[in-house]
Amino acid sequence: MKAYGRFIARGELCEGYFDVSSGSLNFDGIEFPLNGVKFLPPVEPSKIVCVGLNYIDHARELNMEIPEEPVIFMKPSTAIIGHEDFIELPPQSSRVDYEGELAVVIGRKCRNVSSEEAYDYVMGYTCFNDVTARDLQQKDGQWTRSKSFDTFAPIGPYVVSLSPSNLKIETRLNGKTVQSSTTSNLIFDVPKLIEFISSIMTLKKHDVIATGTPAGVGKLNSGDVVEIEIEGIGVLRNYVR
Amino acid sequence: MKAYGRFIARGELCEGYFDVSSGSLNFDGIEFPLNGVKFLPPVEPSKIVCVGLNYIDHARELNMEIPEEPVIFMKPSTAIIGHEDFIELPPQSSRVDYEGELAVVIGRKCRNVSSEEAYDYVMGYTCFNDVTARDLQQKDGQWTRSKSFDTFAPIGPYVVSLSPSNLKIETRLNGKTVQSSTTSNLIFDVPKLIEFISSIMTLKKHDVIATGTPAGVGKLNSGDVVEIEIEGIGVLRNYVR
Repeated sequence: MKAYGRFIARGELCEGYFDVSSGSLNFDGIEFPLNGVKFLPPVEPSKIVCVGLNYIDHARELNMEIPEEPVIFMKPSTAIIGHEDFIELPPQSSRVDYEGELAVVIGRKCRNVSSEEAYDYVMGYTCFNDVTARDLQQKDGQWTRSKSFDTFAPIGPYVVSLSPSNLKIETRLNGKTVQSSTTSNLIFDVPKLIEFISSIMTLKKHDVIATGTPAGVGKLNSGDVVEIEIEGIGVLRNYVR
Repeated sequence: MKAYGRFIARGELCEGYFDVSSGSLNFDGIEFPLNGVKFLPPVEPSKIVCVGLNYIDHARELNMEIPEEPVIFMKPSTAIIGHEDFIELPPQSSRVDYEGELAVVIGRKCRNVSSEEAYDYVMGYTCFNDVTARDLQQKDGQWTRSKSFDTFAPIGPYVVSLSPSNLKIETRLNGKTVQSSTTSNLIFDVPKLIEFISSIMTLKKHDVIATGTPAGVGKLNSGDVVEIEIEGIGVLRNYVR
């Protein structure tokens, strides 16, 4: 499988396209065992635009109305961490949740893109965890604080180009499946989201759109291991402390 | 007055500290008439963190409660424009408002800064217009869409180092004063905001904190000229179309 990302191998930063097969990756003709590389966040986006309440069952579990248009918010780039990095629980919150999501990585700068043309501007897809301090989200009204803590935007392990319309998405907490859905359940699909967001703001190369989480969100505790797996992409694993 | 910024003069991009006096600026020993330079946004922030409802009289005019803690949201860097650039009214909104604000420019990377040490991390201050599609803000609940359109973050003309605690701030629409207050009316002052925001996220050099707007917000129409003037800093002027 062809993928794009950034990783450290033999003390060097490698960035670009590579081939992933079971247990190893091939970059520039050199084979690296996967357990010998450290994946960094696959891109360095200028912004991360997130979509709230984009699966019907998740809106219901939060007792929130299903929106007529996408509800968007942003996470700062300082929240980004990569595969196998630590999510750090902040002292301000006593309830930090995982939210497994499909993330879209933009391939080139665009504005006012129609849904028909949207895929022309996509570089690929990766796994994303929209980590959220649920208590602060409920307290503040605005969602920004609760979703903007450092380490609250795990992304990766790499970006894969594929059709995003019917991919199984699963979140596992300490090995147990806690979220399980498919991207065919998205209320607003990827082309519609790109049309909506690019009608508001210019999207730049490597900007990220996190498409929303299915039902089954729940609390992270220190010592937990949380994994987001998306069919055809891979597994994003993070530790909690 | 010493200031920091970016401008085009004689076809060249100039960036750094310069001296501003009436009608001209001196950069690297060369005198440029102010009407012969084009100011760019003075910095290129990785993020813009904005504070809502931070003047009592503005919270009242929107019929919103005065918050116990700062309410934050973000604007994307793609919304930034400079002094004398055009604010573009988007077709999605029929009510776009000006909001004159004092902006803090961060001088160096920081996290978990106490209010006592906060000024050590400030490079200076500039004028900011938190342009807002009021109808979409009320419709969405979340404020991100309404404040994130391209051209909705005018900033400048340049950054000045001074004490921010008691500065007259005024917004003029087509020459008429429509907002008039002082930064001594801020509910959460600059050191408190830096403490609060840096307890959530790492602030990077040139990141911007917009401190909130006083009462008197109102609608922008095509053809309008909107000016934000802050004592000791200068005037940020933008045109509307």
